[in-house]
Amino acid sequence: MTTRVLTGITTSGTPHLGNYVGAVRPAVAASRAADTESFYFLADLHSLIKAQDPARTQRSTLEIAATWLACGLEPDKVWFYRQSDVPEITELTWFLTCVAGKGILNRAHAYKAAVDKNVAEGEDPDAGVSAGLFMYPVLMAADILIFNAHQVPVGRDQIQHIEMARDFGQRFNHVYGKAYFTLPEALIDDNVATLPGLDGRKMSKSYHNTIPLFAPREELKKLVFSILTDSRGPGEPKDTEGSALFQLYQAFGSTEETRAFAQKFADGISWGDAKQQLFERIDAEIAPLREKYEALMARPADIEAILRDGARRLRERYATPLLAELRHAVGLRDLSQQPVVEAKATASKAALPAFKQYRDTDGRFYFKLTDAEGNVLVQSNGFDSPKDAGRLIGVLKQAEQADAMETPEIVLQVPAGDVLAALAALRAAEA
Amino acid sequence: MTTRVLTGITTSGTPHLGNYVGAVRPAVAASRAADTESFYFLADLHSLIKAQDPARTQRSTLEIAATWLACGLEPDKVWFYRQSDVPEITELTWFLTCVAGKGILNRAHAYKAAVDKNVAEGEDPDAGVSAGLFMYPVLMAADILIFNAHQVPVGRDQIQHIEMARDFGQRFNHVYGKAYFTLPEALIDDNVATLPGLDGRKMSKSYHNTIPLFAPREELKKLVFSILTDSRGPGEPKDTEGSALFQLYQAFGSTEETRAFAQKFADGISWGDAKQQLFERIDAEIAPLREKYEALMARPADIEAILRDGARRLRERYATPLLAELRHAVGLRDLSQQPVVEAKATASKAALPAFKQYRDTDGRFYFKLTDAEGNVLVQSNGFDSPKDAGRLIGVLKQAEQADAMETPEIVLQVPAGDVLAALAALRAAEA
Repeated sequence: MTTRVLTGITTSGTPHLGNYVGAVRPAVAASRAADTESFYFLADLHSLIKAQDPARTQRSTLEIAATWLACGLEPDKVWFYRQSDVPEITELTWFLTCVAGKGILNRAHAYKAAVDKNVAEGEDPDAGVSAGLFMYPVLMAADILIFNAHQVPVGRDQIQHIEMARDFGQRFNHVYGKAYFTLPEALIDDNVATLPGLDGRKMSKSYHNTIPLFAPREELKKLVFSILTDSRGPGEPKDTEGSALFQLYQAFGSTEETRAFAQKFADGISWGDAKQQLFERIDAEIAPLREKYEALMARPADIEAILRDGARRLRERYATPLLAELRHAVGLRDLSQQPVVEAKATASKAALPAFKQYRDTDGRFYFKLTDAEGNVLVQSNGFDSPKDAGRLIGVLKQAEQADAMETPEIVLQVPAGDVLAALAALRAAEA
Repeated sequence: MTTRVLTGITTSGTPHLGNYVGAVRPAVAASRAADTESFYFLADLHSLIKAQDPARTQRSTLEIAATWLACGLEPDKVWFYRQSDVPEITELTWFLTCVAGKGILNRAHAYKAAVDKNVAEGEDPDAGVSAGLFMYPVLMAADILIFNAHQVPVGRDQIQHIEMARDFGQRFNHVYGKAYFTLPEALIDDNVATLPGLDGRKMSKSYHNTIPLFAPREELKKLVFSILTDSRGPGEPKDTEGSALFQLYQAFGSTEETRAFAQKFADGISWGDAKQQLFERIDAEIAPLREKYEALMARPADIEAILRDGARRLRERYATPLLAELRHAVGLRDLSQQPVVEAKATASKAALPAFKQYRDTDGRFYFKLTDAEGNVLVQSNGFDSPKDAGRLIGVLKQAEQADAMETPEIVLQVPAGDVLAALAALRAAEA
């Protein structure tokens, strides 16, 4: 079976070497795995929660799309699209909002962190907190569930969001009586490579220690030469342990090359020479990508076309049909199409839903509820005695609400609403 | 000027006489007012918050649409549509979610009532509360703002929701630097007619005392005859004060007829005769509507077509163009269309945005920021001295964030992001 793997890409900021090594490069490699259908989307609706500078949002979306394409993502082999080009996602967000427990959202880490900070500062707990921050996990659940993704590669801090997506999906399945949604799993990679920045701390925008992925060659050189080192002079042996320079080299060099570079450290290579070799090694990998990136950035209309085409095909293939099914599930239906069961019940007294009790080959007692044409609406599990089965039939006959059918002893084969309609028709006929 | 008036219609339950007298009849009358563009929508997305019985949701939507049409709403003269047929509404809901303060939503009456009930019962405050109940005011704001409605007729209990819609709209306008949204006003009618039910209490589904609006004639008669009265016999004078029978008559009879009916009460009409006269008076008004209703219910495909057509025309006329503008405002843009200001600044050093100071005919000192083509991006108010104006120009030149421009002394003429881009271009040129 093909596994559907979905990856969201934040559309803020300019990608740096740390993003490349930790996220882009491994994800592009994974996109080529066999038996995998990969989804990569630019999460621009998420970016609106924080980014309220429209020109920067646009610029960043362009740069990041160009980055992934330059680094080898193949839009004819994977799904590559922009979240906001799939309006089914915001529609599904509302459906999920209606089944999501507010209490669960209260416990989301990102929201709680904002509240804790406010409380620590003596502010109102929700001061400055937007509803967007609070509702973010529901939008994320819609991102995943609209494509029935099996796996979502995330860091440990994101596991909770995947659990929430499972919870909302499961609740929807339960309320509307059918497995509309596949429940996604978090795919945790504990070996995510983190790269040191110019100052030796983790490379991160918030530390202002990044090397932009597609800095021009001369700027890349200047930045590599500004990496912090210790004061050992030429000829003195140098530690690879704890050396940002060495770790950066390791992220780009082969095992062989890295071993040779370590030897040079032991042999007392000067920092200047080491930096020159690191720069050349990085540039050897990045230069061809940079060329592609610059070519792509010069043709933004092509990138726009690629993204639109991805969303168009994806909607046609998955989002539009699934949303149509979900709209029907919740009751947003073509008014001219009356529910089958009701129509039948009205048409003729003979054509009514019916409970049927029987004993199966395992010796146990079962029942099912069928519609006028014999389609199974409800299937029971096995009971020890026909009396036990009959008792539950009696309960079901009175059911007017979906929760009256919440028992592990039966399995609904159609949406709960359809079963309720059948039961109502049965009661009306018997009254 | 034409006033846009927007009315949401709950799509749950079967309409009764109380709905007709209190809501449908006056709203249909108002829809014929001059200089008014009326919007009536079936709020089916809202109904999903509570109603999780799909067949009933569908049935109820059909009945309610047929009711409004039977009662005289003219779909070629007003906008009549189904909320879920306008997907721009859920997209806008997300944009508004990102600017809405969570703290404001905490104070919504409906949500607070649910919390208070939980607390009183010793439960977790959010037990059983869905995110839908919590986010309802944001969806409602989107309903209103997507059509830039001026007025929303509501009961006093809904004023808060209109205030929230104003707040979210205003925040969006502020964050994105332009009056994208008209701020709606609540239109309060304190004279909403409430009708007594069969037991004399207010007619309401929750009291099980309703008379269905389109009950067949025989059933209507039976229900009218079941109205609670006192035990005065024929010939005894009867009180009109506090008589449900009389109040019901008043809701249908003309002033003249009502006066005559009061006289009969004083003259000692028997309850049986009074009921017969009330029944005939109601049926005189309802029978022709009932006939239309039954004809409409027999042609659900026609109703479906009317609703779809309304939504299609409305989207084309309002929702789709406005959403396109809003997407651009927040930065969800065609990547091939780089911001004009940036492109110009790159093209030529000469073609740069510029600050221009001047003294106006009122003797005060002003400045504006224009783009390369002289279009005004920012207009200042008047200052007492050119030095004061210059000081603010100095501040603006350094602005890198929208909030740096939050001062009453200037008015942005374009989205804040475009101004920031112009300022950045100016800085880049001067660097």
